[in-house]
Amino acid sequence: MNGAQALVQTLLSSGVEACFANPGTSEMHFVAALDQSVGMKCTLGLHENVVTGMADGYFRVARKPACTLLHCGPGLANGLANLHNARRASSGIVNIVGDQATYHRQYDAPLTSDTESLARAVSGWVCTSSDAADVGADAARAVQAANAQGGQVATLILPSDASWSEGGIVVSPLLPIAPAPIEAEALEACAALLRSGKKVLILLGGNALTADCQEAAWRIAKASNATILAEYSPALVARGCGRPQLERIPYSIDLAVERLKSFEGLITVNAKAPVSFFAYPGKPSVQYAPGTQIASLSDQGQDPLQALHALADELRAPVVSMPDPGPRPLAARGAITSEGVAQTLAALMPENAIVSDESISFGRNFYPFSHAAPPHDWLHLTGGAIGDGLPVATGAAIAAGGRRRVISLQADGSALYTVQALWTQAREKLPCTTIILSNRKYNILIGEYKNVGAKPGQTAMSMLDLSDPNISWVSIAKGFGVEAASASSLEELADLLAHSFSLDAPFVIELQIF
Amino acid sequence: MNGAQALVQTLLSSGVEACFANPGTSEMHFVAALDQSVGMKCTLGLHENVVTGMADGYFRVARKPACTLLHCGPGLANGLANLHNARRASSGIVNIVGDQATYHRQYDAPLTSDTESLARAVSGWVCTSSDAADVGADAARAVQAANAQGGQVATLILPSDASWSEGGIVVSPLLPIAPAPIEAEALEACAALLRSGKKVLILLGGNALTADCQEAAWRIAKASNATILAEYSPALVARGCGRPQLERIPYSIDLAVERLKSFEGLITVNAKAPVSFFAYPGKPSVQYAPGTQIASLSDQGQDPLQALHALADELRAPVVSMPDPGPRPLAARGAITSEGVAQTLAALMPENAIVSDESISFGRNFYPFSHAAPPHDWLHLTGGAIGDGLPVATGAAIAAGGRRRVISLQADGSALYTVQALWTQAREKLPCTTIILSNRKYNILIGEYKNVGAKPGQTAMSMLDLSDPNISWVSIAKGFGVEAASASSLEELADLLAHSFSLDAPFVIELQIF
Repeated sequence: MNGAQALVQTLLSSGVEACFANPGTSEMHFVAALDQSVGMKCTLGLHENVVTGMADGYFRVARKPACTLLHCGPGLANGLANLHNARRASSGIVNIVGDQATYHRQYDAPLTSDTESLARAVSGWVCTSSDAADVGADAARAVQAANAQGGQVATLILPSDASWSEGGIVVSPLLPIAPAPIEAEALEACAALLRSGKKVLILLGGNALTADCQEAAWRIAKASNATILAEYSPALVARGCGRPQLERIPYSIDLAVERLKSFEGLITVNAKAPVSFFAYPGKPSVQYAPGTQIASLSDQGQDPLQALHALADELRAPVVSMPDPGPRPLAARGAITSEGVAQTLAALMPENAIVSDESISFGRNFYPFSHAAPPHDWLHLTGGAIGDGLPVATGAAIAAGGRRRVISLQADGSALYTVQALWTQAREKLPCTTIILSNRKYNILIGEYKNVGAKPGQTAMSMLDLSDPNISWVSIAKGFGVEAASASSLEELADLLAHSFSLDAPFVIELQIF
Repeated sequence: MNGAQALVQTLLSSGVEACFANPGTSEMHFVAALDQSVGMKCTLGLHENVVTGMADGYFRVARKPACTLLHCGPGLANGLANLHNARRASSGIVNIVGDQATYHRQYDAPLTSDTESLARAVSGWVCTSSDAADVGADAARAVQAANAQGGQVATLILPSDASWSEGGIVVSPLLPIAPAPIEAEALEACAALLRSGKKVLILLGGNALTADCQEAAWRIAKASNATILAEYSPALVARGCGRPQLERIPYSIDLAVERLKSFEGLITVNAKAPVSFFAYPGKPSVQYAPGTQIASLSDQGQDPLQALHALADELRAPVVSMPDPGPRPLAARGAITSEGVAQTLAALMPENAIVSDESISFGRNFYPFSHAAPPHDWLHLTGGAIGDGLPVATGAAIAAGGRRRVISLQADGSALYTVQALWTQAREKLPCTTIILSNRKYNILIGEYKNVGAKPGQTAMSMLDLSDPNISWVSIAKGFGVEAASASSLEELADLLAHSFSLDAPFVIELQIF
């Protein structure tokens, strides 16, 4: 048995069942080992950032790691942006990077680069497995690491000779690393803050936005008169009927400061005390008011549900029913607005849908208009590195085994980063509906430019505008094998959405908001 | 004057006239400074790897650095693969990465990452400019560094507060760092080897493949009965009538060893002693025969033309005329073959064309059939990181001011990496003809898989095959605003090539070789 075969068998025995790949020459023995195995679902991405984004989306829905297969340092480099997002999402990924043979590295052949340094920027765990005899054990450790800390990127670098050499050993799964226990002091500090009479915000982030966690947080909030909010860009938020009508902290530093200024206490649950996405001249970096008393209930290495239950019990908070979001909205009509898109989506989305939201500026206010939709999960761009929406949707659809409709709310500028994901959706016949929010500009940047204090001139607009030539999303989608049509009104959007939901295949709607 | 304004003015005064950009929020003051300036040609890429690839292509043709503008660590990450290729091409690039404000970094906002570590993997020079007062001086040093060592990536990281703060100072250009002198010992060793009666190969790489360098090398070869070859993947090779009919070292380790086995001496001119792209079980890493006597005439930090002239003079080599490549071929007819494509291109290409060759497996043998074309420059994939062909072509066309036809020989799998470059070609109305070599598979990998000793099964083929669904390159190109048509015979290729050469605009030919 060679190293690659030991790797594949160890991954399978450790419960890894999905491989997202864009292989190269140095990975051919791994590909051969996959070919000889049963039980690993292999999915090709046409670019590494599609591969890593799919692995991120897969984890968010499956709650277990997939493996990737990337080619040398440059292949890893191509996938780094979505590994960055995966890191911010605390997604567990066994990130396998084939590389030059150990003895060939000294010759500095063209594709040779500093793979380990690149990996460290996004990984919680990095290991180069230099000997076929070690590959199985290293793979088992990689799976364990990917599942630790609530989920993290574990990069296993595999020189080609470790892959092809005989002497591979299949290793049994390692025991999961248990989450760190909830600290009694943290629990007491949070309870004391909630009992203090101060106006308190409970901020949910990371893994604390499941339906169960929100229910426990709601129980606490009702018992203590606290407010609950979600961080701005969580990995997954359970939403719709039967969940609290949670809002997010606004993106804009001004709006965020305004929203948070009245709180005297802040309890973070798997979240960081909120800071601005970027610094702006003369504006604060942190979004909460000076003097806010901050208490951390749990962090990413702990179990937020256990923490929230413990806090609710400590407060003797009674079990309460979830608030009523009111009647399900009807599809909106007329000209396209952000609110109308959200309302139409809420009116039509199938139960248990998954929304992949990379809507950027257009979609910041979708939440209030979709609380009364059927239960669904909403995935955000966690790390700010644009280009995750379509790959995350694709990986989420694979994790759901094609049994849940996935809806991408996708800004056009960001869609251009990883548009190749559409091809994988077509190949895998995934039930993915993509709404391209085609405003033909980097609208967020035009907004930011105004903060500089000037109106963009011709040179600036040449870097912010996406018209000239206009991009035909229908043509691009069809080029990648995905059916597509355009909509210029909310009625047309509703018709196309309903049509797409009837298909066992992907569909792209070019929503013309220019 | 703020830091960003000092940066732009310093770049302009240092001779940087082109900026390839995909900006984000933290770069808005730089964009504003560009808006207020005259003399910088700004070109938007829809993905950072398009941006960095354009900067690479620009340098190869203009022989002077452009600047880039990238957004934070993840934006840099997206552009790393083509910076890797640029590093291998010794292309000078002033690589500007906007980043979090210095005081904001501590809060670890979502886009924060280890920008410096990412930059080091591809850069010869890295500097974070933390103070507006330093930005001008750092920019001048960056331009100097980009021009040093025959050209290298010089990364200037610009925290947003250094950009927006007042106190910027415009700095005069620094004197170029002179190339290291040619060493007398190296010269003597090379001359002695050439006089020894041994069978000697002169291997040209890096900047040693200009017309002038080849002419000098040809003079040496004729005087000493040596052979000249080019390395496998040089940044630029001057080719066609009036140049020697140079061949490259083959890609395949077996063919390369066969080609090199009879040489007893090897003189490298801005090249490394040749090694295999990858290691293979039981095959050597180095391509030259054991015992080959190796002498380095010059390396990347030296002037190869000066070195070759000095060696020719040392040998008292007479000036000789260039060998006659024979008559220009006629366009080939019939079914599509690699040879027929090369011959048709040679028959039809306009004088002084630029070829961007990312043809991968299909194009390894294009050279022998295109020696008798008019003079032209041929650009290769230097670092093996696929996805450079279209961006390099785009940057090369911009460097040539639209006055030279640029022809991309583009493998389909690799084209999918940076297909967004087509949009920039359309926006800038560049005379770029792209031939997509559409074989609907990663053919190089199917070849490599066979070396594993097995026939690919269904799982393996799912990662090596690009059909299901078939990609329509015509549809994708039109989606990006570029006219396109498909060809399934050499006659159709010839007709479409001739048509495209008459346009002041890009054109895509989908060459159906499936």
